[in-house]
Amino acid sequence: MNIEAVIERVLQSIRPTDEERAFVEALMKELRTIAEEKINELGLDVKPYFVGSLAKDTYLAGDHDVDLFLAFPLETPLEELREKGLELGEAIAEKLDSYEIAYAEHPYVRAKYRGVSVDLVPCYDVKDWRDVRTAVDRSILHTRWVNGNLKGRNDEVRLLKRFLKGINAYGSEIYVRGFSGYLAEILIIKYGSFLEVLEKADFMLRQKVIDPAGWLRREPEVAMKTVRRETKEDRPLIVIDPVDPRRNVSANLSWERYGIFYFKAHQFLENPSEEFFFGKTGTKGSYLAELRRKGTHLVTLMFPKPDLVDDILLPQLERSAKGFERALSREGFRVLSWDVGHRSGKAFVMLEVDRRERERVTIKPGPEFFTERGWDFYRKNEKVWIIGKRLYAEKRVKENIIDVILELLEKDQVALGKNVREDIKSGEILLDYVPKELEEDAYLFLSREKWNLKG
Amino acid sequence: MNIEAVIERVLQSIRPTDEERAFVEALMKELRTIAEEKINELGLDVKPYFVGSLAKDTYLAGDHDVDLFLAFPLETPLEELREKGLELGEAIAEKLDSYEIAYAEHPYVRAKYRGVSVDLVPCYDVKDWRDVRTAVDRSILHTRWVNGNLKGRNDEVRLLKRFLKGINAYGSEIYVRGFSGYLAEILIIKYGSFLEVLEKADFMLRQKVIDPAGWLRREPEVAMKTVRRETKEDRPLIVIDPVDPRRNVSANLSWERYGIFYFKAHQFLENPSEEFFFGKTGTKGSYLAELRRKGTHLVTLMFPKPDLVDDILLPQLERSAKGFERALSREGFRVLSWDVGHRSGKAFVMLEVDRRERERVTIKPGPEFFTERGWDFYRKNEKVWIIGKRLYAEKRVKENIIDVILELLEKDQVALGKNVREDIKSGEILLDYVPKELEEDAYLFLSREKWNLKG
Repeated sequence: MNIEAVIERVLQSIRPTDEERAFVEALMKELRTIAEEKINELGLDVKPYFVGSLAKDTYLAGDHDVDLFLAFPLETPLEELREKGLELGEAIAEKLDSYEIAYAEHPYVRAKYRGVSVDLVPCYDVKDWRDVRTAVDRSILHTRWVNGNLKGRNDEVRLLKRFLKGINAYGSEIYVRGFSGYLAEILIIKYGSFLEVLEKADFMLRQKVIDPAGWLRREPEVAMKTVRRETKEDRPLIVIDPVDPRRNVSANLSWERYGIFYFKAHQFLENPSEEFFFGKTGTKGSYLAELRRKGTHLVTLMFPKPDLVDDILLPQLERSAKGFERALSREGFRVLSWDVGHRSGKAFVMLEVDRRERERVTIKPGPEFFTERGWDFYRKNEKVWIIGKRLYAEKRVKENIIDVILELLEKDQVALGKNVREDIKSGEILLDYVPKELEEDAYLFLSREKWNLKG
Repeated sequence: MNIEAVIERVLQSIRPTDEERAFVEALMKELRTIAEEKINELGLDVKPYFVGSLAKDTYLAGDHDVDLFLAFPLETPLEELREKGLELGEAIAEKLDSYEIAYAEHPYVRAKYRGVSVDLVPCYDVKDWRDVRTAVDRSILHTRWVNGNLKGRNDEVRLLKRFLKGINAYGSEIYVRGFSGYLAEILIIKYGSFLEVLEKADFMLRQKVIDPAGWLRREPEVAMKTVRRETKEDRPLIVIDPVDPRRNVSANLSWERYGIFYFKAHQFLENPSEEFFFGKTGTKGSYLAELRRKGTHLVTLMFPKPDLVDDILLPQLERSAKGFERALSREGFRVLSWDVGHRSGKAFVMLEVDRRERERVTIKPGPEFFTERGWDFYRKNEKVWIIGKRLYAEKRVKENIIDVILELLEKDQVALGKNVREDIKSGEILLDYVPKELEEDAYLFLSREKWNLKG
């Protein structure tokens, strides 16, 4: 299939239908009416703004969550904004189906309405980057800038976002460190089309700095400071935010995710297919066959998924995996690779190790021989010898990796993420076996298909 | 058995009998006569001196090699000393049973006479440390000093020497780094008796500096320089040579050998027995049982013993063992311990390793992904992923340790001692098996009985 045909087919499935579009527009209209009513009732000077991909018409079919920002005048004290903002959000949400309070820099209301998730977020009504006071304030400016510059290339954004999702490089969350939606929009505006962006994968990296709004000319001092700071941080890209010269839009983009984009863009241009957009289907294989092929072993720590959002849970699992890597290597096991995640209500840390048993006798270094502690060591151990000034002895050790892990956990010798420490300690440890629901994760991990650039 | 009884029994076997003594004295007399004749015949101004344990009457029964030094006047040029010394040695040796030329700082004659080894060594006839010109010149002064100070405690020296031999701590050769005979004599002279020396094992170490001839008073500047230099080298003892304040008699004594003496002295005083003097008899065991007990594996590199003296061969084998330790650890095998030696015409390097196979697939780091070399790496490998900016790939590797060693040797990736490199490369590699004649070495090594302080 040629590239245009592939793109056309993909567009058919990701472009919202007229029905979806009508539904979304009706929904927004209705929400705006409710919001305005409540603002009046509470006698507030607040403007409601829709932001995000819905407001920019860059959402993917079926993916139409609403972000309704409640903008307070700049002179509102922060404390008042928090309080009144939450009160207003709750008043609006009362008219919807259900809601809960969620927490970011300040609390906001997350409601459900007609099957759609609706975030009601208080912010300041900023007109300019110099006014920005909280992390969410820029969203209104982003929406405005994209809408002013996209010039009908909304489907190009949809293609790029879907492509990034398909190759596992979408999302600026800390546990993804990929491309944000706003970054995708900027790249389309800058380079004109989905295919142009793919073709620029190498060029962008070499050019490094992207400045779509010309800040380096308009505010050279502030913009250069951003470039210098981000250069020092060694980011793959420095995209000066069109609405704020102090900010690198791609500050959270990792080299790994950029690298995936880099190779997948190349592959797609060479050999286009729909698979790039939707992930490979049927990447099934047997994790047991992988273990046999590689001669390695799989240790899985598993426990009921704690009630934490991914932003918290996944970094904590990663920290724990790294803790196991270090602790096991001190114990003579090599961790070749690790993976973390959750599936069907189970959180897991998977460790691929080089062997399941280690030698039964190991060598224990002791103190200098001519000291009190040296004499203790000499008395306590059966076989003792000297290398340099120090005594050494044989020590019998637990041989199975599971026993070693249990002992490490018991002695608190593994650095674990603090929110998952107790879960891991009371969880299950599996060797060369995972339950049905984790079989695919185990396969993708062990076969490296999860991150294989050629997968 | 009480300590006096043990000592008495040991003395009976190490003190030369009257017959041996008479034989040795007759031999020395005869040799002196031959030497003086030849000196006259050649018209040389040379004095023959007996040195070493025979001349000091501190030799062990049955161990009566002769050192006959041929002392030239100080004004003799070095070249002439070498030439005439060798000529004289050969002339003397012609009257003996057989001889060969051996090489140290300068060549000397090693002869055999009536079953006894006779070294004929040219040197300068020094009266004082300031005259010392070659490494052997001090021997005459040592003999003179010991004979002047030992005061009949010759048997105490014999006990100490035999004890040090029995615990494997005798000999100042580079591959032993233990106590020299001269050091044993000094310690007896300083502390009075064999038992006193054992009791001072801890005290000596703490006092650190032993100065039997009072050099720190007589030549404070030179002696302090020696103390400072040797302190910096962190020697277990600093024994200022009674005949030369510039020299630490125990410069070659290692912490390991001092440590063995330290613990064995303590053990002997607590629980005396003849075993300390003659080594444990019947320390036999099965190396295969040791391997099973420990769950480890034994790799033995074996080849015909090259025609090298131990001073050269053993350090080269040690260097090679360390080379294997490093190279194998890079390859994912852990070397727990190593040993080298030769037995029945076979030289060997033994390595105790943690496993005989390693995982069949390992991870290979590649270049940065956005480079020419990155693209090469990407094209060449089947599964490729990114960590940071670098590409990584799976690599199939040789799995058996023997294959790994063969490949390492073939690619010259093991640092080997230069005189044994080719022997090792063309030698045999054995896994978990040694020929009959190395079984005891393998057992002593694997069981750690070789250096076990409690063995």
